[in-house]
Parts: sequence; C-alpha cells; structure tokens
Amino acid sequence: MKTPERTTVGTRERIVRATSRLLQRQGYEGTGVKQISREAEATLGSVYHFFPGGKQELAAEAIRHGDEEFAVLLRAGLGSSPDPGEAVLVCTRMLARELRASDWQDGCPVSTTALETAGRAPEIERAVAAAYANWRAIVVDHLVAAGIGTQDAAELAGTVICTLEGAELAARIACSEEPLLVSGKHLARLLGTYTGAQR
Amino acid sequence: MKTPERTTVGTRERIVRATSRLLQRQGYEGTGVKQISREAEATLGSVYHFFPGGKQELAAEAIRHGDEEFAVLLRAGLGSSPDPGEAVLVCTRMLARELRASDWQDGCPVSTTALETAGRAPEIERAVAAAYANWRAIVVDHLVAAGIGTQDAAELAGTVICTLEGAELAARIACSEEPLLVSGKHLARLLGTYTGAQR
Repeated sequence: MKTPERTTVGTRERIVRATSRLLQRQGYEGTGVKQISREAEATLGSVYHFFPGGKQELAAEAIRHGDEEFAVLLRAGLGSSPDPGEAVLVCTRMLARELRASDWQDGCPVSTTALETAGRAPEIERAVAAAYANWRAIVVDHLVAAGIGTQDAAELAGTVICTLEGAELAARIACSEEPLLVSGKHLARLLGTYTGAQR
Repeated sequence: MKTPERTTVGTRERIVRATSRLLQRQGYEGTGVKQISREAEATLGSVYHFFPGGKQELAAEAIRHGDEEFAVLLRAGLGSSPDPGEAVLVCTRMLARELRASDWQDGCPVSTTALETAGRAPEIERAVAAAYANWRAIVVDHLVAAGIGTQDAAELAGTVICTLEGAELAARIACSEEPLLVSGKHLARLLGTYTGAQR
C-alpha cells in the first residue's frame, strides 16, 4: 500500500456504489454481503472493516449515496429555469434519460429498500426519511424563489417528489420514458396554476 | 372433509392472501414458500399442489389479487362522484384510511415485487403490466365519461396511477396520511384544469 489514504477511500466508495447498484436491481432482501464484496472487488474483511454493522449499515449508506445522487440531479434540473414548471419538466427528462441509459435497470435505490424493510430496520428508515426531507427541501427552495407561498410550496414539493418516484417506478416497469415525461408535463401544468404560467 | 369444494377454495385463497400480505410487508426476496405455507396454515404439499410453479407463480397470483383489490377501490372511489377531481380525492382518502388501519404495513403488493424482480421474472412482469393497464383503463373510463378527450384522459390516467403509487409509498414511509391527501388535492386541481372545475 503505497498510497493508503487513496486506496482506503477507493475501496469504501466501491463498496457503497456496488451496494447501491445491487439494491436498485434486486432489492435489499435479495442482496447479500458476500455478493456486495464480490461486486465491489473488495474482501469480505474490508467490507466489515468499513461497515461493522453489516447489511443494514451498508444499505443505509447506499441510501445516503442515492439521496445525494438524486439531490444533484434535482439541483441541476431545477437550476435550469426560474419557472418551476419548466424546471420540473427538465428533471423528468433527465431522469428518463438516465433510466434509458441503464437499460431500465437503475431506478431509485431508496424506494425499493424502503418498501422492503418498512418498520423493520430503523437505521434504514432514518436514512430514507432524511432523503425524502432533503429532496423536498430542494424543491421547496425553488418554488419559494419563484414566488409560491411557503405552505403551498411545502405541499407541492411533496407531490413533486411522490410523482417523480411513482413515475420512475412506472417507467422502469414499462421500459418506457413516457410515464416520466407525461407526469412532468402534468406537474408543470399543476405548478402553472400557482405561478400563472400557461401550459 | 365434508365439503371438499369449499375447503379447496378456502385453502387456495388463504395461500394467495398470505402471499400478498407477505409481499407487501417484506417483499419478494424476503418471502419463502415455507413461510407462505405457515402463514396460510396450509401444508407445503398443498401450496405446490395449487402453485406447481412455486414462488414466481405464487407472486404472480398475489399480484393479480392485489390488482383486483385496488381495482375495486378505484371503482368505488371514482363511482362516488361524476367530477373526476372530487372522485380522485375520495380514492386517496380511501387509500389513506386503509393504510392507517393496517398500521402503515399494507401498501401496494405490486410495486415492491415489481421493483425487486424487474427484468428477472417474466411471469411477474406480465401480471404487473396487466395490473397497471387495468387500473389505468378504469381511470380513463371515468375521465372520458366526464368529458375529457381520449388522448388527454389516457395521459392523465397514467399520471393519476403513478401519483397514487408514489404517494402511497411516501405515506407508508412517513406513517402519515398527508402525502396521499395532499397529492389527491393536487390531482383534483390538475384535473380541474381539464374539466373547468375550480379548486
């Protein structure tokens, strides 16, 4: 180990990315720590070195990773236009493009794991709740900046996140961009009734 | 066995209901055929008698069961008002009430299983696609009856189903009726822009 620090960072990140990929494709229950170690090209010892809490800790960290990935997409998409409707449409186009590029495999790592473990894994639940709160706050900020009142913005942001989650699920199942693009159009129309933008 | 026919029907139905319940609470990968047989109070032999295809066949049948359950709710909710917005709001209230009554445990048996097995279980994929198509058709009929054009109705129905799925997921995660009730309000507002109803 010539550069222990870089190697350490690299291995930990490979493990988190592998966990995230496996959770998206086959869920929490179908994923084992041994498979994560194989996919990450890391020894089982190093997986437990970084994540002594095992699978639940790995999943919680993968959810935090997915949280940040989706937050980056939301910030980029929303930053593309001051008009909330247009900005949300851009987000759905970005999501659709990413989903198609992964051959409809890589959906949201948060939702599958959340559904499978609901009520049974507190560390995962906390990470999921934090992810939803983070995404919602990003959307709220954009809506408030566009002049929507804080109460309306908080409610609308919740609906935007729910709709994106549901549409991504439907797009994955149908192997089609349509549910995301159509939902984006409808969200834009809904938001337009608050901002006065015509659609 | 005094009434063999009734007993036979009862066992098969118990198995399907147990499968559906387990899929909702712990997903496909976390559910085993042995656990299904225990939960259904049926022998392993009778489970394989009714479902020789094993877990994938059981899951597909449970999805068809969930498909019909949600279809019944949609028909009842939509039938409550000729105004699509008001009718969709009633659907979200019914979903919220059911979810609360199950202590946030029983969500949609279709979505978790669909996400976990995407691309890996053709029999399940067919059942999931049929469920989405069935639900969408029920909503389309209601929207067309309310005077919305067929193309708009088809698109809106897709968004209604996606949003209900996403909001139910969020409601389960948050152990709160709010995501469903707020999404219902927003769907009603969106639909009102097509029917001219004010909200």
